[in-house]
Amino acid sequence: MEKIPVGILGATGMVGQNYLRLLENHPWFEVTFLCASPHSAGKTYEAAVERRWHMPTPIPKRESQLYVYSIDQISKALEKCQFVFSAIDTDVAKEYEEQYAAAGLPVVSNAGYHRQTPDVPVLIPEINASHLSILPSQQQKRGWEKGFIVTKPNCSIQSYMIPLAALHEKFQLKKILVTTMQAVSGAGYPGVPSWDIYENVVPYIAKEEEKTENEPLKIFGSIVDNEIIPTPDVRISAHCNRVPVLDGHLACVSVEFATPPSREEILSIWNAYTPITQTLELPSAPEKTILYREELNRPQPRLDRDAGKGMAITVGRLRPCNLLDFRFVALSHNTLRGAAGGGILNAELLFTQRYLT
Amino acid sequence: MEKIPVGILGATGMVGQNYLRLLENHPWFEVTFLCASPHSAGKTYEAAVERRWHMPTPIPKRESQLYVYSIDQISKALEKCQFVFSAIDTDVAKEYEEQYAAAGLPVVSNAGYHRQTPDVPVLIPEINASHLSILPSQQQKRGWEKGFIVTKPNCSIQSYMIPLAALHEKFQLKKILVTTMQAVSGAGYPGVPSWDIYENVVPYIAKEEEKTENEPLKIFGSIVDNEIIPTPDVRISAHCNRVPVLDGHLACVSVEFATPPSREEILSIWNAYTPITQTLELPSAPEKTILYREELNRPQPRLDRDAGKGMAITVGRLRPCNLLDFRFVALSHNTLRGAAGGGILNAELLFTQRYLT
Amino acid sequence: MEKIPVGILGATGMVGQNYLRLLENHPWFEVTFLCASPHSAGKTYEAAVERRWHMPTPIPKRESQLYVYSIDQISKALEKCQFVFSAIDTDVAKEYEEQYAAAGLPVVSNAGYHRQTPDVPVLIPEINASHLSILPSQQQKRGWEKGFIVTKPNCSIQSYMIPLAALHEKFQLKKILVTTMQAVSGAGYPGVPSWDIYENVVPYIAKEEEKTENEPLKIFGSIVDNEIIPTPDVRISAHCNRVPVLDGHLACVSVEFATPPSREEILSIWNAYTPITQTLELPSAPEKTILYREELNRPQPRLDRDAGKGMAITVGRLRPCNLLDFRFVALSHNTLRGAAGGGILNAELLFTQRYLT
Amino acid sequence: MEKIPVGILGATGMVGQNYLRLLENHPWFEVTFLCASPHSAGKTYEAAVERRWHMPTPIPKRESQLYVYSIDQISKALEKCQFVFSAIDTDVAKEYEEQYAAAGLPVVSNAGYHRQTPDVPVLIPEINASHLSILPSQQQKRGWEKGFIVTKPNCSIQSYMIPLAALHEKFQLKKILVTTMQAVSGAGYPGVPSWDIYENVVPYIAKEEEKTENEPLKIFGSIVDNEIIPTPDVRISAHCNRVPVLDGHLACVSVEFATPPSREEILSIWNAYTPITQTLELPSAPEKTILYREELNRPQPRLDRDAGKGMAITVGRLRPCNLLDFRFVALSHNTLRGAAGGGILNAELLFTQRYLT
Repeated sequence: MEKIPVGILGATGMVGQNYLRLLENHPWFEVTFLCASPHSAGKTYEAAVERRWHMPTPIPKRESQLYVYSIDQISKALEKCQFVFSAIDTDVAKEYEEQYAAAGLPVVSNAGYHRQTPDVPVLIPEINASHLSILPSQQQKRGWEKGFIVTKPNCSIQSYMIPLAALHEKFQLKKILVTTMQAVSGAGYPGVPSWDIYENVVPYIAKEEEKTENEPLKIFGSIVDNEIIPTPDVRISAHCNRVPVLDGHLACVSVEFATPPSREEILSIWNAYTPITQTLELPSAPEKTILYREELNRPQPRLDRDAGKGMAITVGRLRPCNLLDFRFVALSHNTLRGAAGGGILNAELLFTQRYLT
Repeated sequence: MEKIPVGILGATGMVGQNYLRLLENHPWFEVTFLCASPHSAGKTYEAAVERRWHMPTPIPKRESQLYVYSIDQISKALEKCQFVFSAIDTDVAKEYEEQYAAAGLPVVSNAGYHRQTPDVPVLIPEINASHLSILPSQQQKRGWEKGFIVTKPNCSIQSYMIPLAALHEKFQLKKILVTTMQAVSGAGYPGVPSWDIYENVVPYIAKEEEKTENEPLKIFGSIVDNEIIPTPDVRISAHCNRVPVLDGHLACVSVEFATPPSREEILSIWNAYTPITQTLELPSAPEKTILYREELNRPQPRLDRDAGKGMAITVGRLRPCNLLDFRFVALSHNTLRGAAGGGILNAELLFTQRYLT
Repeated sequence: MEKIPVGILGATGMVGQNYLRLLENHPWFEVTFLCASPHSAGKTYEAAVERRWHMPTPIPKRESQLYVYSIDQISKALEKCQFVFSAIDTDVAKEYEEQYAAAGLPVVSNAGYHRQTPDVPVLIPEINASHLSILPSQQQKRGWEKGFIVTKPNCSIQSYMIPLAALHEKFQLKKILVTTMQAVSGAGYPGVPSWDIYENVVPYIAKEEEKTENEPLKIFGSIVDNEIIPTPDVRISAHCNRVPVLDGHLACVSVEFATPPSREEILSIWNAYTPITQTLELPSAPEKTILYREELNRPQPRLDRDAGKGMAITVGRLRPCNLLDFRFVALSHNTLRGAAGGGILNAELLFTQRYLT
Repeated sequence: MEKIPVGILGATGMVGQNYLRLLENHPWFEVTFLCASPHSAGKTYEAAVERRWHMPTPIPKRESQLYVYSIDQISKALEKCQFVFSAIDTDVAKEYEEQYAAAGLPVVSNAGYHRQTPDVPVLIPEINASHLSILPSQQQKRGWEKGFIVTKPNCSIQSYMIPLAALHEKFQLKKILVTTMQAVSGAGYPGVPSWDIYENVVPYIAKEEEKTENEPLKIFGSIVDNEIIPTPDVRISAHCNRVPVLDGHLACVSVEFATPPSREEILSIWNAYTPITQTLELPSAPEKTILYREELNRPQPRLDRDAGKGMAITVGRLRPCNLLDFRFVALSHNTLRGAAGGGILNAELLFTQRYLT
């Protein structure tokens, strides 16, 4: 099979670097277009990220020699690739993502800007693949022919949304109270100063609680009149904290259902969980999406974040809650599952559903 | 005033060391008796803690030369002091605290063993000083003349119990969901291996959630037939985590009241809060017991744990909760307010109430 | 005594904040003028540092209400104060320090810019107070009447220069090989990203090794023809590392002398060390300048940095070196002794020597 | 090829666990015998290490079901394996390693006990493979037929010994001054309490400096009269520090040669370095043994310790030293190259040299 040429908007930032690293030997996609802000543009990728490459492995050889275009050179993108991953900041996304889509390039986005746009899916393939059916009307409404925008949710919710979604259809989630302990890599680079977070916890991350409380409702939402209407049946309250951990967002979750399951039912659903990403054998899908650990003191960020190459969700400590029905602890890798890896999984789903050809 | 001679059971451990440090220049009490396990006994205190002194300041001069007795030399204690602080492990407490009380020495304990004993107060002076009225019947039932046992609660609950108690009488607490992020010093020394906690979070502390859920109910309880009956009106659910912080337990709290107050009412009660410890001018009481910080990102362990010499409670981020009524973040110093400092405050209250003379 | 009004150039940065904090109750000096870069200027100090105050104690009340001028409003400085502390970056120092001195204000600087200027003393009061005698010729050469510039050395050398200087006169230092492990606060704020330094060591700090190797030679230098000539007799080789420590620079030192002392001679000199700062009873001088610890595993940054209110030097592990004569470990607090505290000590010396009146 | 059955003495400790993990799919060796101290013995491996398995990957399936014998069941070892890896403490090594060798089992040891025994090689295959020629006389002297003991050096010296040895033959090392910054995993488990090392540096590791100064001399030594005589030509001085890093020992090295090379000569030798481990294609040898990084701020423990699957040595910052000839920074993974991985490499060399058949 010939690989599909793809571009990366915001290729020099931390998420962009992760895209490059994860796509290095991707079986379906090949990076052929890179762009960045004007002041990083105009050189090879290697020169553009000099001294700012933060990945554990070296810059992929071939991609290191790609030219970095300025993000406004959309015609170049059209020449060189078939769709783009967007790893740009929200305000830049506001300016450019629609331009790319209008020009004919599907945009698989990490940015927050369009998460509230009613006809843009906030996609977690395991949960709401059905929301992709809104794309034709998204295109029609805007007069786009081939382009469209799909985005992914904030990294803070990825650790527990899948385990909860696995239970939602049968038992109906009603209330979720979640306290997150989030890694510093979630703030990008340079991100959190060591002076602020070392030997400390910061009980606040700007806008994080709002995202954590709202995005899941849209993901669980229904399409009505070509808009995704957030579910009115679930309520979420979030406490978001930054902790001195490099990678891996941990969440303590208490949950109440309309029809409470037993502990055994929950465990059996989690253990049998086989989402569309596994049945479709998406390349980035982990072998097992939900890993339940029986040990009393798991999951832990350092020990469990890399499970399933950083794409699995590790869960533990399922037990009754004194206030709601159950409580548990969940973990996911915030820059893999929660950022670039999640974006690639979205693109893989889109590809199998023939949205990228 | 002549100072009251006091003893420390378990003087060589981390809590014992904190007692020594905090009592160095105490206006009312003077350390005159030290004891430890048999293998640490039989030398001067300085020799007994050699290379194991973990306090930031040097061993107090006078106390460094005190002889360390074995914990079973109770007659020596009787000779040398008038009451004792108990900084021993729960299983040792089981064996010895009653012996000391029976011998005639009041025991102001940090240990967990008697927290479930119905006629032993679990004391936070700001909240349940009234529980001291059970002491005469505690003595009578056991045939003790001068001795008795008072204990203090687990360090994990100290950060938010006082702010909640300040609201309880007027608005009646009903439900509390708390997620703690606790410092490594809570595990004593050597405590948590660096390999386990560095660049990590451990979402489990043995027995901590049970204590966090039960002890407050007793503290809010009533005395009926010479027993302290836990309140049946409050329910607590706790997630307890160990984080890579040296000192300072942080708690994210969501709370529901029988009669929900407004945000302004809560803040005004907290700001005006003047507990008995301040009206009695107890030497270890902070100038202000509850410090509310307006900054969005406070309290933080490293920045706020030492407020009020480690005896104040710092609170922040009071805001509505999507599920219960309100949520907030609270912090206290776990080895000062939460351990030795709390024990000394208990003794100071007992002294002013004439239980120690 | 009426206090001397002083100004702070760069009052909003981390070093500037330390100056404010340390001068809060200074017996001789009183802060009356604050300035910063134009974009921080034009408001009260409290407003100017909002959310960027990084000190453990609150902003001093009185100073919080001072107006922050722009650094180019030198005439305002002249109105309001008698000398200034300079806490500005090297390139800003280049532009402004001479202007302030020319305008008639002595500049007690923390900046690196003038450290290589031959007639500007790089002052550690305990070592080279005699270099102040160059000030009249510094003024004369430049046509300054009352103003002058005195600077202090880089924070990386403060931990071991004093212990070495104490031995220099009698035994003549020849070779010094030093490996430093430096705290993140040395890089200011936001400084080192947590992503770079957490669970890591960075074996490089830009320009730090050059400063570490050159500045001591000037401090040990002689005044010849109105210039301070670096000593030709000492050679230094430095390895500088950044470690995940908040405050406190640690140095492993090997040293060779022209006339090697015995271990006992070294210890006896260190223990008897009574520098001019102590005989003059400078307010910021610690009671004991060199603290030698006998424990095998000291000094340690977290345990020893605050000795002498952060102004003492803690030394340990003196033992023979297999290559040079001796080796030892030394520690000082980099933002107290090594920055603002050191600057204030310099000003105190200048004051007693009548340079500031 | 049929795999050689091997045993592990001390299989339940941290180094033993690393052996199991690294041998899981070894092409030549297969673990068939496990033993531990009596109180861990008598159950399956899985049961024996329950809750104490500290590796990032799960216990190897097959090995998890192996029975754990007591270390004194040497006859069982003889039945089940052909040679043993020793991952036991020095005092246990003293008692048992010779017994195993006497019983006919070659012992490839990690323990320190025999490092000073004159006819026991302290082996780094890249450096002193020639020392294996002493084994026949070691056996003869003790009357051992098939057994023998080979040990490996302390982990603190592994990072810089190979880069230095690469230069030794041509330029003759004379003086080495090294300051190490060592990871907490070097102390085993539970090892360093978090209270001691977090936000801190401990400038002392018991006996580490002595090992660092003496072991290299034996490794560079010559065989004379069936004894390995340490080289008299090299002198080493070491400062050893514990830093808050999980894995990876970093060393700042200054070095003097009898015939000083140029910087280019050193780099060219390092870049061309092809030791016996690579020419023999030992399975655990990295593709490139010495990796020189041009970036100014490398190597760093977190970024470079896993190079070559933890078996490569990363070097950087080669530059002239003001006192000796050159200085540089070197890094190796202390529990892979420095412990179990190094032991396996030793066994691989022994196997190719027909000592294990």
